[in-house]
Amino acid sequence: MSEGIYQNIRVVLVNPSHPGNIGAAARAIKNMGLSRLVVVEPQRDPHDSEARARAAGALDVLMRAEIVETFDQGIADCGFVIGASARLRAIPWPTLAPRDAAAQMVGAAQSQAVCWVFGREDTGLTNEELQKCHRLVHIPANPEYSSLNLAAAIQILAYETRLAVLAQQGQAEVHVPNDHPLATAEELEGFYAHLEKTLLQIGFYDPANPRQLMRRLRRLFNRTQVDKMEMNILRGILAAVDDKTDQHGK
Amino acid sequence: MSEGIYQNIRVVLVNPSHPGNIGAAARAIKNMGLSRLVVVEPQRDPHDSEARARAAGALDVLMRAEIVETFDQGIADCGFVIGASARLRAIPWPTLAPRDAAAQMVGAAQSQAVCWVFGREDTGLTNEELQKCHRLVHIPANPEYSSLNLAAAIQILAYETRLAVLAQQGQAEVHVPNDHPLATAEELEGFYAHLEKTLLQIGFYDPANPRQLMRRLRRLFNRTQVDKMEMNILRGILAAVDDKTDQHGK
Repeated sequence: MSEGIYQNIRVVLVNPSHPGNIGAAARAIKNMGLSRLVVVEPQRDPHDSEARARAAGALDVLMRAEIVETFDQGIADCGFVIGASARLRAIPWPTLAPRDAAAQMVGAAQSQAVCWVFGREDTGLTNEELQKCHRLVHIPANPEYSSLNLAAAIQILAYETRLAVLAQQGQAEVHVPNDHPLATAEELEGFYAHLEKTLLQIGFYDPANPRQLMRRLRRLFNRTQVDKMEMNILRGILAAVDDKTDQHGK
Repeated sequence: MSEGIYQNIRVVLVNPSHPGNIGAAARAIKNMGLSRLVVVEPQRDPHDSEARARAAGALDVLMRAEIVETFDQGIADCGFVIGASARLRAIPWPTLAPRDAAAQMVGAAQSQAVCWVFGREDTGLTNEELQKCHRLVHIPANPEYSSLNLAAAIQILAYETRLAVLAQQGQAEVHVPNDHPLATAEELEGFYAHLEKTLLQIGFYDPANPRQLMRRLRRLFNRTQVDKMEMNILRGILAAVDDKTDQHGK
């Protein structure tokens, strides 16, 4: 199902001047699961060596990019069009943050073709082009230097697009299971008791404030959520110290 | 105040091979309000013409980048280190999604130096380097083509960093700081070296698999984000064990 959503989302580059950016755009969108690139009136050959080098493993996306002559052709069959705008314009147009824009884009893409539109490297989209967009999206960049590289801006919006698709599927989170289950509270208590005994035995205790010491050590190990394998290692270390320092240790 | 947070967040590039990527990284971070770039052992001149062209308006960030010789130098004074990892490794290390990673990074950056670490273009970070990170971050890319351009990955994490700072400024969250600053990467390395020496001395080592043991212990203590006071306690315990088991300990 998500396959269909990704297929419905195009990335339209308007009149780009640097082929390298077109190649990098192909890579950026393929990395995020998108594959449909549309280039409106490129100023130079969009398949030149620089473009191909920057596309890297997304050469297929680059070579299959649709090249069209006009802005209107680029967005023709799209039911929802969001234009990227670096500046906030004099004439206000409904403008979204990237995250909200991506959520709306993915929602609309469930049933129809939609697109992100990116303007020229130097001047962006013209006012006429902006007014053909349903929404604008503004990346909240550093006001002292807000001009992102074209492919970098595409990377951010493609990333937010992917997150929105994953969120919809309920699998946005990276889940890395521990390789062992966590130690139980009882096992932790056994460890703390052993630790306290060993610390006494080796003479390590702030005699003025023993309870503060154990409290700090508890906080440290509780925070880390010790798993069963790690617990075995820690108990093993304590037992080895006991053996070395006490004849009836172990 | 956010000025201080941005200043505390470094972006560390390990052994990058393409100067163009270093320039693009400078631009990506400046666009998001960051300014501190650290380059560990670049394979070519990080200030060459390609790097300068790609830096565009972030030439200042590129030219002020700190060039260091080793990974350890790059992260030395940082209390919280998150490494970018394209692959999910055989031995799981605590791994966060970009958004959660940025929230934790910005939280820690309120009081100390922190860093994002990015590996080589082709092979990423080594296992040894990954084990020096407190957390890993994984960008949920297209599994069929998950290798992002280095600067593109940096752009995504810098963007999430900026969103996290902006979110923090918009919220009146109760922030409960640790009562002590976190131990730095350098202090942690000192601890691990001491721990390994002491474990050898007390005869605790799986002789068949010593590196697996230290890796598990690193993971445990990195996960918990040891503060300076706790670090003193842990070193004190090791010193007390040394005293009891070795005549020339301490």
